[in-house]
Amino acid sequence: MKTIEVRASSTYNVLIGSGLLDALGEQIKKVCNAAKAAVISDSNVFPIYGDTVTQSLRSAGFDVVHFVFPAGEESKNGHTFLEIINFLAENHLTRTDCLIALGGGVVGDVTGFAAAVYLRGIAYIQVPTTLLAAVDSSVGGKTAIDLPAGKNLCGAFYQPRLVLCDIDTLDTLPVDIFRDGCAEVIKYGILYDNQLFSTLEHSGLQFDREAVISRCVELKRDVVAEDEFDTGSRMKLNLGHTVGHGVEACSEFQISHGKAVAIGTAIVSRAALASGLCDNETRDRILSILEQFELPTTCSYSPEVLMDWALSDKKRAGDTVNLIIPRSIGHCDIVPSPVANLLSFIKAGLSYGHHHPPQKAFR
Amino acid sequence: MKTIEVRASSTYNVLIGSGLLDALGEQIKKVCNAAKAAVISDSNVFPIYGDTVTQSLRSAGFDVVHFVFPAGEESKNGHTFLEIINFLAENHLTRTDCLIALGGGVVGDVTGFAAAVYLRGIAYIQVPTTLLAAVDSSVGGKTAIDLPAGKNLCGAFYQPRLVLCDIDTLDTLPVDIFRDGCAEVIKYGILYDNQLFSTLEHSGLQFDREAVISRCVELKRDVVAEDEFDTGSRMKLNLGHTVGHGVEACSEFQISHGKAVAIGTAIVSRAALASGLCDNETRDRILSILEQFELPTTCSYSPEVLMDWALSDKKRAGDTVNLIIPRSIGHCDIVPSPVANLLSFIKAGLSYGHHHPPQKAFR
Repeated sequence: MKTIEVRASSTYNVLIGSGLLDALGEQIKKVCNAAKAAVISDSNVFPIYGDTVTQSLRSAGFDVVHFVFPAGEESKNGHTFLEIINFLAENHLTRTDCLIALGGGVVGDVTGFAAAVYLRGIAYIQVPTTLLAAVDSSVGGKTAIDLPAGKNLCGAFYQPRLVLCDIDTLDTLPVDIFRDGCAEVIKYGILYDNQLFSTLEHSGLQFDREAVISRCVELKRDVVAEDEFDTGSRMKLNLGHTVGHGVEACSEFQISHGKAVAIGTAIVSRAALASGLCDNETRDRILSILEQFELPTTCSYSPEVLMDWALSDKKRAGDTVNLIIPRSIGHCDIVPSPVANLLSFIKAGLSYGHHHPPQKAFR
Repeated sequence: MKTIEVRASSTYNVLIGSGLLDALGEQIKKVCNAAKAAVISDSNVFPIYGDTVTQSLRSAGFDVVHFVFPAGEESKNGHTFLEIINFLAENHLTRTDCLIALGGGVVGDVTGFAAAVYLRGIAYIQVPTTLLAAVDSSVGGKTAIDLPAGKNLCGAFYQPRLVLCDIDTLDTLPVDIFRDGCAEVIKYGILYDNQLFSTLEHSGLQFDREAVISRCVELKRDVVAEDEFDTGSRMKLNLGHTVGHGVEACSEFQISHGKAVAIGTAIVSRAALASGLCDNETRDRILSILEQFELPTTCSYSPEVLMDWALSDKKRAGDTVNLIIPRSIGHCDIVPSPVANLLSFIKAGLSYGHHHPPQKAFR
């Protein structure tokens, strides 16, 4: 088991390893003296892990209740949020009790938001069961729900009390959902770590889970320590997300977050090359690894429609939108760009140039 | 005009005086460089002051939009909250824009909560137009919505960028609503300031508004500076509220917040005397001043029902509820009490003893 300490407005541990779920109750007792624990989960995850988690919590002495909502990004909305909040109130959870987010990014984001505002804030624990949640959304305290106008437009910065990532839960993950998480793993490589990126190029989907997840969490820990409230360097984590959120929304969430991020990353890398902001090799390695992981690199939505969604993105400030531009593998910049230039940027990203097909010999 | 500086997680001014509304736009420009301002108000207030506020904002260069919801406590709910959030997203407000809460406590609370979580937080300005909002809810950053299970059960601590209180707006307040605010003014006297309490005893409803509002805001400023996040001394501000929230909820908000607080304060003062925690004179002065201001001091709900609501109160921590007990005028204590004792406490508060009718000669 790896333990990674995150230092933000509060300090907490991320535990990563095999077989951790059975010890969840005991681990929570170390960080929180709640009497009652409300497990929030979805219709995919709770049937698989609900009993194990409930048993572990009861053995540790917690009074346990649970709330399960339909799996899927379309549940990450105001309605689910209010249902959870009302569930907590009806079950008389008090300020000293806690929530447990058992599931992927949707469960973690909406549960974290509920925890942030129920009674103006109670403790919560992240138990990510997808790769995407493990490497990204469960760490760092960004919580949110989606609005009809766009992704994550309502939320809070609110750190969990503990993140417990049992990598065995990834065994029950459909490979397609596992790939979604790979898009975020690849993102860390592009942003910060050429060596991680190379590892992924060589291993493909068969990477060492504990090692790679731990590396991603370490990278995220450093980002969160530097810029918890996303006013500076943390924005880099939105590589591929400004356009990606648009893709996701255009598809009415039929294109998953991970795949939308892959498409957004591909678009940005092509546009970066077209604007002379990165070289051919950088773009090619990015497009190649996405294809190697069988992630999409383009979409059928028009640049006008994508731009419209991008303008709803949180990263916009007045007439400027902050784009995250890959300069080389392991190094990206935040480039404030006039809204007026966004359309031609997206156009270039949808179409610009051709790259080498993925070839082992190429690297 | 009085200027009172509040030092919390952020520092801001409360401006109190006559004729301030016309200068709202200019005052906001000093503290916030928003391009767009969304005025959130209700169906009572916006028809009276909407034009003045919009004009002032436009003159100062802001792009202005507004959202108006039906007046009344029953609007302070999840539905209104989501409507506001969606309105902001549809109007493309960005992180650098701002909200303006134009109205009483309901408008201020729900607008503040929307500001706290829209894009994970944007600036907002409180423009209280009721006495209650001026002396209490607009200052200190407690924002919330009600749930079916109880009052203010969902919210955030989130400080405004500025509070602008134009005391002329109180001229259009029905006297009955003005009285509601008096319940909170009286509360400050009971909690902290025997002299303020005596002033109110002598002046009745005709008190000097600028002076009394300023004194209340100064007292609240000190409380917020000491305990912004309500884990200690700030809880005293809930004098009369634990039971009061129950009264309000039992009545389905037909009994206003101010009147419910008056009832709650009266109940607590009777129960305090019954428990030997205060003397006859303290209880009598409290009951007398409430009657002098024509505020109610009892209700027809059973102690069992009131207790049930009180148990949903945020102030509960596990099996303990923190009661705010008046010891003498100007001095109260936080008394952690077992949930098991609450019923007999409320019973005593509903019935215990008789007090002198209000007589000028008595004081």
